[in-house]
Amino acid sequence: MRRSTQAIDASLASLFVALVLLIAAAWSPVLAQEPLPSWKDTPAKTRIMSFVKATITEGGEGYVAPANRIAVFDNDGTLWSEQPYYVQLGFVLDRVKALAPQHPEWKTRDPFNSILGGDLKSIAKGGEKGMVDIVMATHADMTTDEFNRLVTGWFAASTHPKTGKLYTDMTYLPMRELLDYLRANDFRTYIVSGGGVEFMRPVTEQLYGIPPEQVVGSTIATQFDLVGDVPVLKRLPKIDFIDDGPGKPVGINKFIGQRPIFVAGNSDGDYEMMRWTTSGKGPGFAMLVHHTDADREYAYDRESAFGKLDKALEEAERRNWLVVDMKNDWRKIFTFEQ
Amino acid sequence: MRRSTQAIDASLASLFVALVLLIAAAWSPVLAQEPLPSWKDTPAKTRIMSFVKATITEGGEGYVAPANRIAVFDNDGTLWSEQPYYVQLGFVLDRVKALAPQHPEWKTRDPFNSILGGDLKSIAKGGEKGMVDIVMATHADMTTDEFNRLVTGWFAASTHPKTGKLYTDMTYLPMRELLDYLRANDFRTYIVSGGGVEFMRPVTEQLYGIPPEQVVGSTIATQFDLVGDVPVLKRLPKIDFIDDGPGKPVGINKFIGQRPIFVAGNSDGDYEMMRWTTSGKGPGFAMLVHHTDADREYAYDRESAFGKLDKALEEAERRNWLVVDMKNDWRKIFTFEQ
Repeated sequence: MRRSTQAIDASLASLFVALVLLIAAAWSPVLAQEPLPSWKDTPAKTRIMSFVKATITEGGEGYVAPANRIAVFDNDGTLWSEQPYYVQLGFVLDRVKALAPQHPEWKTRDPFNSILGGDLKSIAKGGEKGMVDIVMATHADMTTDEFNRLVTGWFAASTHPKTGKLYTDMTYLPMRELLDYLRANDFRTYIVSGGGVEFMRPVTEQLYGIPPEQVVGSTIATQFDLVGDVPVLKRLPKIDFIDDGPGKPVGINKFIGQRPIFVAGNSDGDYEMMRWTTSGKGPGFAMLVHHTDADREYAYDRESAFGKLDKALEEAERRNWLVVDMKNDWRKIFTFEQ
Repeated sequence: MRRSTQAIDASLASLFVALVLLIAAAWSPVLAQEPLPSWKDTPAKTRIMSFVKATITEGGEGYVAPANRIAVFDNDGTLWSEQPYYVQLGFVLDRVKALAPQHPEWKTRDPFNSILGGDLKSIAKGGEKGMVDIVMATHADMTTDEFNRLVTGWFAASTHPKTGKLYTDMTYLPMRELLDYLRANDFRTYIVSGGGVEFMRPVTEQLYGIPPEQVVGSTIATQFDLVGDVPVLKRLPKIDFIDDGPGKPVGINKFIGQRPIFVAGNSDGDYEMMRWTTSGKGPGFAMLVHHTDADREYAYDRESAFGKLDKALEEAERRNWLVVDMKNDWRKIFTFEQ
């Protein structure tokens, strides 16, 4: 059987088009489905997508080269729940209780007595910095490998006090979609959190697709040592760096070495990195996650012990920062929701 | 004109093959040419390639998942020349000379008087740590943006005292090929250097294809501040972290958060990170660049003021670390060579 040249030219053409589409699809996974499915079709979603589209539009005013597409995310209250207390505080409570029999002196020593007595308000008064202090005091005097095993084991078994779900299930689905969406558009996504960097790193790949080297956080001092002839890193009971408030742009500069163009936070602890991100020469986008949904999550801002949001909310409008309203902008918050 | 179905089927087939090859080439740049062309066909090259091939062979004993393929490189003496003095010391000398008229007191103050008098040996005695101290003293009290501009401008115009070439031409071609080869095999390549991180970052992408966030180095303290309403980071005259010797595994753990599987160094300042890299649970490869070529570069080891190599060389054989002999293992050292 013979086919006409015309028909064959047409089949050649469609083969070529099909292959081009195949290559395009492989290189732009975002084309495969509508991005941000758990976001409602509100102005918040539109603003985010308009910004991202501008950054990838070559020749446009908002274009940013892939090398400079750095996005930074706070963790507590921005990527996962921070109520009724920070996840890392849950770890601290469990550690203190587990170690208490070996430390009778803790019964009369702050903040250990508050923890053992379940008085979370006293602990909360110290804020994120106060919590970092407790973490440092209870998490040192072991090697980095030992600490990693401890954290990994704890996450595998520990559950949220209100929902009873694993802490690792308490991440916000819309934010995970946002991370995916940014990466599909050649952004490099970082966590920049007040939490301990070695507390987060064992789980961030699994939770958010963020590898250890893209997690910036508070650090304690470590020291190289030889045990016999085996090299170890010892965690010393000494704070090295607190990655909160004005420490966040410092941490970004130290670890990442360039100014981000996208930042997401939810509290005044993110204020300075939002200022830093939105005052570069080129485009800069900042968003706040506003906790407005007491039914599905929590509702809090100015008065909260954890994740206090006051100054950043006050200035959001005049600085053109997007305030995301969890209740009205998110279709679904947690994966386990019905 | 009509073509036969057979001829057209053949052209369809070759179009398809061509496209598949095109896609394969785009996805595996290493297939395009023989890797490491500036390396002679000596056992050094074979050992490196055997290790890399093992790490990418799924199911094999030496296999390492891409997420864990972290490679770290010292910079001075490993990626570029550190003789007759560290590149960063060249920058320091020029800065001190430029600022000297405003600082008459430097004429009688160490180490400024040594620098102004051209007495490099006195400076060298302080080693890498001593040099970091001088750098801190002369490079603070400005914003990070200002420092970046200063460094960028200096690199654009400054030349090596012996070759007269730009410092940015003083990189080792075989090592740049090694970086490319590792990246083509899904390694993530990092610099881990005693040098100042903000001195290296403005040029590492251009020199080595290494972006700012993959440069670990010594840091000075910075502070977030507002100038009017404009956020800046001020560089304070205070050392934050020295990324040398036992500081290198500490820096790796802090910035990268996982143990590398490949390390390249050239001096005793790299000893601890070589120990760290080669004592993980899985495969680990360490190599030393041994400066043996007085004609094309420099020949030095145990007695050198910069890049002293003694202990690491002594232990290399029993620890199974590869010692690369620049003279006999490298076909070409610099791009500008005839």
